[in-house]
Parts: sequence; structure tokens; C-alpha cells
Amino acid sequence: MGKNNEVTAMLKIDYPIIQAGMAGGITTPELVAAVSNAGGFGTLGAGYMNIEDLEKSLTAIKQQTRGSFGVNIFIPEYPDIIEEEIEKTNHLLEPIRKGLYLDEKPKPQLSHSLFDHQLEVALKHQVPACSFTFGIPSKEVIRDLKKEGIFVIGTATTVEEALMNEERGMDMVVAQGSEAGGHRGTFYNTYDSAMIGTMSLIPQVVDHLRIPSIAAGGIMDGRGVKAAFALGAQGVQLGTAFVTCVESGAKLQHKEAILKTPEHDTVITKAFSGKPARGIKNQFTNEMRDHEENLPGYPLQNSLTKDIRKEAAKQNKPQYMSLWSGQSPRLSQSISAGELIEKIAAEASLED
Amino acid sequence: MGKNNEVTAMLKIDYPIIQAGMAGGITTPELVAAVSNAGGFGTLGAGYMNIEDLEKSLTAIKQQTRGSFGVNIFIPEYPDIIEEEIEKTNHLLEPIRKGLYLDEKPKPQLSHSLFDHQLEVALKHQVPACSFTFGIPSKEVIRDLKKEGIFVIGTATTVEEALMNEERGMDMVVAQGSEAGGHRGTFYNTYDSAMIGTMSLIPQVVDHLRIPSIAAGGIMDGRGVKAAFALGAQGVQLGTAFVTCVESGAKLQHKEAILKTPEHDTVITKAFSGKPARGIKNQFTNEMRDHEENLPGYPLQNSLTKDIRKEAAKQNKPQYMSLWSGQSPRLSQSISAGELIEKIAAEASLED
Repeated sequence: MGKNNEVTAMLKIDYPIIQAGMAGGITTPELVAAVSNAGGFGTLGAGYMNIEDLEKSLTAIKQQTRGSFGVNIFIPEYPDIIEEEIEKTNHLLEPIRKGLYLDEKPKPQLSHSLFDHQLEVALKHQVPACSFTFGIPSKEVIRDLKKEGIFVIGTATTVEEALMNEERGMDMVVAQGSEAGGHRGTFYNTYDSAMIGTMSLIPQVVDHLRIPSIAAGGIMDGRGVKAAFALGAQGVQLGTAFVTCVESGAKLQHKEAILKTPEHDTVITKAFSGKPARGIKNQFTNEMRDHEENLPGYPLQNSLTKDIRKEAAKQNKPQYMSLWSGQSPRLSQSISAGELIEKIAAEASLED
Repeated sequence: MGKNNEVTAMLKIDYPIIQAGMAGGITTPELVAAVSNAGGFGTLGAGYMNIEDLEKSLTAIKQQTRGSFGVNIFIPEYPDIIEEEIEKTNHLLEPIRKGLYLDEKPKPQLSHSLFDHQLEVALKHQVPACSFTFGIPSKEVIRDLKKEGIFVIGTATTVEEALMNEERGMDMVVAQGSEAGGHRGTFYNTYDSAMIGTMSLIPQVVDHLRIPSIAAGGIMDGRGVKAAFALGAQGVQLGTAFVTCVESGAKLQHKEAILKTPEHDTVITKAFSGKPARGIKNQFTNEMRDHEENLPGYPLQNSLTKDIRKEAAKQNKPQYMSLWSGQSPRLSQSISAGELIEKIAAEASLED
């Protein structure tokens, strides 16, 4: 355990604590910088971000920290747009839209160039690291990034997926246990079969990899960090623990929901984006539950629910918001990111 | 961590390692005794056991060890027998029965006196501890056991269930994470909502209990034990890790299946007993998957599939057997129980 290992050396950080690159405005430049300034590894969740916003965010991060940080990028998917499916789903969503006084039916959106442009920006800004979710980039992309000295971090939810990341040339792999909040990173195994608890996933992944494993899923405090290291991880990635931090850009309703939710009130749902993700149960996840199999795939469903989630936040209707959370909400705290990292480092004796 | 804590003191053992009281012939007197002789806490899985077998097993255990051990008892359920449901299920099972040359359709069975009789035997034999699954016994039962100096151990899958165990007077609670093999111990929350990963469950339970928490789910070696202690548990319970041990009474096909299965090949199924349990996917779980919601409840379904499972083992057809396993089968070992405990104690520095 402790300060110096492969992960801290590669990422040039004091503590092997990575703040997950959560998309949707949670990872403000302030959050990323606060984590990095405290000796951890902040990550900008660039998932759905257009390049103007990405550039702006990277500039803002660099103004606030000299520390090391990363950018998380989604491997794109381009499902067929099936008009009937879209219409049915828009019909399903109509009562909710009406209740929010939303008139316009959204059109499904796919951006075929976003991924390449995001990569260009990351290369141009020479970010210290890029992490990837929903798949593995091509060998060429990995080579280009590495050539610029950018470390590459993959995401896996099974041993097989972890091995595929290593074979493709990733520097380290985040092994995401079933406890994790937000989107499942599963890309090869089926979603159901890849719901492996962190306690099981980490040692089995560690036994098969030469590159370092980063544990994710259910880790919120020093106890979780210690446990992850005991299981053989060389680093940890925390998402939910940072959502409730002061610097996080999560909506107030989202933060409050996590702070008051018991551990058994989250659910895996495809209703918001078309891809399974863990969030707090609410009216939206309940109403959509029986229709999950008929929704358009990711990211089409995401574009169909975007206006609902945005407007619901404005009108203070958390029952229609995506309230991402892992299975340890009882351990969440409303403190600054720096304080959280200091507490964890002390609890897990990372200072030694 | 280490040798001396509340759990080792109460249970009079060297290491706070409990062998789970798995039902169905896995926990032979040889296994229970081997665990206890090695300094751990063996448990006889009395689940479906009639009192003659229970008495015989207890006598055999006492002949083989002076160590401390426990008996696991199922809290009984008495669902209504709905003829139509039984007939439909027997019809579903008919092709499998035919393939195994089983002629007789089984009748659903409920034993209304088994629980009381098992308790009487436990009291008569003054077993060191009784553990319970599928619920909590009455205050009177707990009082009677404690009066005889018998320690009582509950099972919980959520914080609420753990608190209910403490309030009823349990001496300690096994907190069963979603990784665990075999039956879910859930009795108050819904099965779906109570699938909390061990990494999340343990610290949240520990924060709410005054009595000791025993971590279960995904723990197979010293790394898991260390992790469980880091999370705040005062003991661990291992099931799958003992199934593949030499002294285990698990069928050879069951042991072999665990030893060769990857982590993503288990499934939660009600098909064998009517109650959700984690086992290795096979033809039986696949064929029954779409019918899970229409099966008779536990233990009726158990009595309907008993002959199939037994005959399948005889005819070496593991595709119809219940191959219980947690999510860490890649960590399973074919060694003696004593060796396993010694290895774990060394890896987790329990000797200190």
C-alpha cells in the first residue's frame, strides 16, 4: 500500500486515488483541480462534451492546478435509428414531458465525429492521461496517445475485458464492480453476467493482469481503499464519493438524494441513456421499468431524455432526474474534495 | 485484525473464519471437524436435514473434534400449495425427468415440525452456536438457546435486516453480499433491492451495529479476509471456498464445475428451490429462466426438483444439478479444509 507504487509513479500523484470521470457536468474544472491539488487524480468526464466545452474545461483546469489529471472519453456507438422505436419511446415519455411543459419532441442524435475531435483536443492539450469507457480504442489511437506521453486507462467489468484492455496496450485498467454508480463499463460480456461484486472482481482480475488494476465500485472512504489494496489493487477509483463534494457540479437534488438514500434503494436502469447504469430509484425508473427492453440503444435514448432531465432539475422534480449513485450512499459526505482525499489518505494510512 | 476479537472470544476459536452452513450434504461431519480442528468455526448445514441425520451428524462431529462449531437452521416458510402451479411446474420439468428415466411425479412437501425438532436437537446436544438463514427466530427461541449458553448468529443482506437481527438479540450477524453463492438470506427487503455488493454492504452494516458483523460474499483467500477486516468486519464466512475442499460432501461434478468456471458464469436462480440462489449457469437454469416467476415458492419447488438433482448427479449430468457458487470461482482450490485455513491465516496475518 502507500504512497509509492506503479500507479502513483505513472500518473505523478501522491495518492493512488482517482476521481471517476463522470459525465454530465458533475466533474467541474473546480472538482478536477481540487482532487489533483490534494494529491489525487482528478478526471474530467468528457463523455457527452462538445469540443468547445472540452477546450474551455481543460483550460480552466490548467489554470487551477499544476497537478496531474485525466480526461474520460466514451467509445462511441452508432445504433440504427429505428423510427418506430423512437416514436414509441417518445409516446411513452409524453406524459412526463407534458407535466414538465416541454412541447417539442426531441430527435435522436448521433455524432459521428465527436470521438475523433475529443481525442484531437486531448492530444493538443497534452493531458496527462486519457481514460476510456464502453470499450477500447484502436491500437492506432493508443499508439498516438502514448507517443505524446499520455497514459491510457481502460475500463473492465470482467477478467476477459480486463485482459482485452491489457492486450490492446492500456497502461492500467479500472475494474468496475457491480456496486459502482453510473454507467456499467461492460463492452464484451453481457451486462447481466458482468455484474461482479468488487470483492470478487478485483483479486480475480489482479491474478490475470501484468498491468496495475484500479478498484472501483462501493469505495467511499479509507476502509474501502484499504480493502481494495488488500485485494491486490494498486489504485482506487471513486465516483459517488465525489458527487456530493462541494466542488462537484451535480445538481443539488442529486447530491441531496445520495446523502439521504439507504443502500438498497439504487437500481440498474437503461431508461435514461439506453445503457445500463446504477442510480437511485425514482418515479422515472419505476415507470420505465417494464419498457426497458424496447427502448432505443445508447446514445439514442440519452438524446430522447436529455430535455426531461434538464427541465426536471430546473423545476426541482428529482423524480425525473438521473440520480446516479453506487451502493454505498450511506457513506457519502458533504465536504470538499480536498478534505475527502485527506481523510481517506489518513484513514487508509497512505501517508506512510 | 488478528487472533483475538469479540468473535474469536465468543465462539472460542483461533481464527475468525466461519465455514458457511451450506445445506444439501456439503457440510459433512469431516468438513465441519476439519475446519474446527484447524482453528476456524465449522458449521453443519442442517437446512433440509431430518432429526435422525442431524443427530448422527452431530455425534460424528463431536467424535472428530473438540473444537467449537455451529449448526445452521433455516427459518421455515409454509406457502400455500396451489395445485395448478404445481402441475404446471411438473409439466415443465417432465422432459428433464424423462431424460433421466424418472417416472414418478413428486408431491410438494412441507414439514411443519422440522424447525422445532431441529432446535430441540441443537439444545439437547448443546451445540456451541446456532446460525439462522431466511429470517430471525422468535425472541423465545433466542432466549432458550442463550439460556443454554448457545451463541446465536443471524444472516442479513441489508442494513435494515442486520438491525432487525440485533434488535431480536442475535450475538452477531453475517452480512451476506451479492457475490455470495447459494441461497440469498434476504427476508425483509425485496430480493432485487438486497443485492448489495460486499464492498458496499459491510461498512454500512458495521456503522449501524453494536454487535459484530461477519462478512460473507466473494471471500476466498487471505486477500478477501484482509479486505473484510479493513471494511470493519470482525469475522468472515466462506462458503464456496469450502465446497471444493477434500472433506466437503459436494458432488464431484459440483466441485469440478466451480474449479473450472470463470467469474461471469454464475446466475441468481429460483429454479431449484423457489428461493433466489447463486449457482453456475447450466441447462437447467437456462431452461427455467423464463418461468422463474411462475414457480411455486420455497420450499415447495425444492421438493419438486429434489429427485432431478439427485438422479442427475448419479447419472453424471451436471447440466441438471444445482451447482452453487459465489462470484469468485477462479479463486477456488482443491485442498484440505485445514490447509485452506492455514493458508488464509498466513496470508491475512491472523497469526500475529
